[in-house]
Amino acid sequence: MDATSGIGVPQETLDAEIKSFFESAPPLKNGDHICEKLKEFIDRNLLPSGNGNARRVVCVTSGGTTVPLERRCVRHIDNFSSGHRGAASTEHFIKAGYAVIFLHRRRSYQPFCRSLPEDPLLECFEVMDESNIQVRQSDSEAVTRAITEHHAAVAKNLLLKLPFNTIFEYLQMLQMIAISMTSLGAHAMFYLAAAVSDFYVPWTSMAEHKIQSASGPLDIRLVQVPKMLSVLRKVWAPMAYCISFKLETDTKILLEKAEMSLKKYKMHMVVANELSTRKEEVVVVTSDEKISVCLDKTRVGTEVENPLIRLIVERHSAYLENPDLCDI
Amino acid sequence: MDATSGIGVPQETLDAEIKSFFESAPPLKNGDHICEKLKEFIDRNLLPSGNGNARRVVCVTSGGTTVPLERRCVRHIDNFSSGHRGAASTEHFIKAGYAVIFLHRRRSYQPFCRSLPEDPLLECFEVMDESNIQVRQSDSEAVTRAITEHHAAVAKNLLLKLPFNTIFEYLQMLQMIAISMTSLGAHAMFYLAAAVSDFYVPWTSMAEHKIQSASGPLDIRLVQVPKMLSVLRKVWAPMAYCISFKLETDTKILLEKAEMSLKKYKMHMVVANELSTRKEEVVVVTSDEKISVCLDKTRVGTEVENPLIRLIVERHSAYLENPDLCDI
Repeated sequence: MDATSGIGVPQETLDAEIKSFFESAPPLKNGDHICEKLKEFIDRNLLPSGNGNARRVVCVTSGGTTVPLERRCVRHIDNFSSGHRGAASTEHFIKAGYAVIFLHRRRSYQPFCRSLPEDPLLECFEVMDESNIQVRQSDSEAVTRAITEHHAAVAKNLLLKLPFNTIFEYLQMLQMIAISMTSLGAHAMFYLAAAVSDFYVPWTSMAEHKIQSASGPLDIRLVQVPKMLSVLRKVWAPMAYCISFKLETDTKILLEKAEMSLKKYKMHMVVANELSTRKEEVVVVTSDEKISVCLDKTRVGTEVENPLIRLIVERHSAYLENPDLCDI
Repeated sequence: MDATSGIGVPQETLDAEIKSFFESAPPLKNGDHICEKLKEFIDRNLLPSGNGNARRVVCVTSGGTTVPLERRCVRHIDNFSSGHRGAASTEHFIKAGYAVIFLHRRRSYQPFCRSLPEDPLLECFEVMDESNIQVRQSDSEAVTRAITEHHAAVAKNLLLKLPFNTIFEYLQMLQMIAISMTSLGAHAMFYLAAAVSDFYVPWTSMAEHKIQSASGPLDIRLVQVPKMLSVLRKVWAPMAYCISFKLETDTKILLEKAEMSLKKYKMHMVVANELSTRKEEVVVVTSDEKISVCLDKTRVGTEVENPLIRLIVERHSAYLENPDLCDI
């Protein structure tokens, strides 16, 4: 086994950093309730599905995490991410027969609702008379389809939505999900599309009150968030198929960084994407391949997630047939 | 005239800082379109209203501004603010006969929709059959009222909604609004409830690409946002009645800081609120009074904005009768 993990950090240091991160994190509100919902969702999906096999379950993470700068939080650092990739991928996974735990940033894009305007209630409905509202004719099909498909996925136990805001909430919930998915073995998948903060202010060294702006510039020192990918892979979910994402704005370093992630965190797959072209092309990096996955512009209504999820489902099938072979 | 302005900064320095802020800011997208909408809204409200007088118009700012840390923005610093105060106040101003320019953070609380769940489309509607959706009986009244009241306010030219994300967008739009409201004279009011960033990274010194997390902690140096309140009051909107907000988490310094704002920026009123009690009590600070305004807990369905907006409307009426007397 590798003596180092994360970014060249010795294993003992990383373990200590992770312990310290979780110990200092503010406790998760309604943790028991989340735990119950998770258990119920996974138990139902452990029962044999239509084809007689256990259902595959993927945890899709989506949207950006925030880093509080003050305990009584007024200011925080946020990571830009609309959550479009995660919401789109969730729909495609459900269509491919997966059950999805959608761990998402509050108010980010929701599956089945991506084509609707920002405030559909105010923008798609009109008032008929004093006590009657109605969907505008032009929006009727999109609104009806969004609500119908969303409710169907939830009713069939194929979609469990869990929201987060902070990096503390995100990592605590990811750990809970991973542990609760252990019973699924290699049927479990992690599709880590969330934009997770690289840096944070430890809770213990955080200002109690709002930082004052009385005089001069403000200097903030942030420390690195411990690299949880390796602990997810090794400890929390050793049997699951793990896919992480690498987003950069500089194409020159993108593939190099994706390969580094693959090796260091022992991911099964890293999806590399560049901020400005991420809706047209991604590169899937595995231990022996680099596959460019592109949007098929000749077909109306498709998106890059169509071929991406198709490829991932194939690789997950191969992994299910022989988990050891793919276990790099 | 005072030789200093802002936080003890000489006027020339402040002017230079403001000039530099606007010059370095990325240009506002669709600025021309916003300008047109503003002109149309104000022109319509300049016509005598029902009582034969010109309508009063208030610009309510709401929600938090963001500060980009990178030009191709992945990370930014955000100010916590749900926008509840601004959305609630907008409703009360409209009921009091004002027209409202609602300059709000994208996806913050919207007027007339505060009582609805986070995702009303998915949470309040049910599927009847394949092509039919319907509001759940239990949510029917709230949903219908929200849509009806919102549409009525827009249709009557009493509500113009303008969204922002960054501090650059916010301040550029505030300036445009102030200048376009000049024709309203003392009928114009500014109710500055937005949580505006105190610190920013100047666009010119901002990293082009995503900040790398390769090694060690991250140090960020932020400089102070020039105090625009004084320029709003003196240059952009010298006749308007101006109310700013002071939010602190430490009650000990709250009133002192509110009084300082009142004097330094020559506000007509400062509303002081403490983070944990802001929905029950605020203190209205003027040049000769400190008035505690409390939620009337004996009356169901009221909020602290009921007495607050009532008091503000009274003071604005007095100001309209004699703007010079109140002009501190």
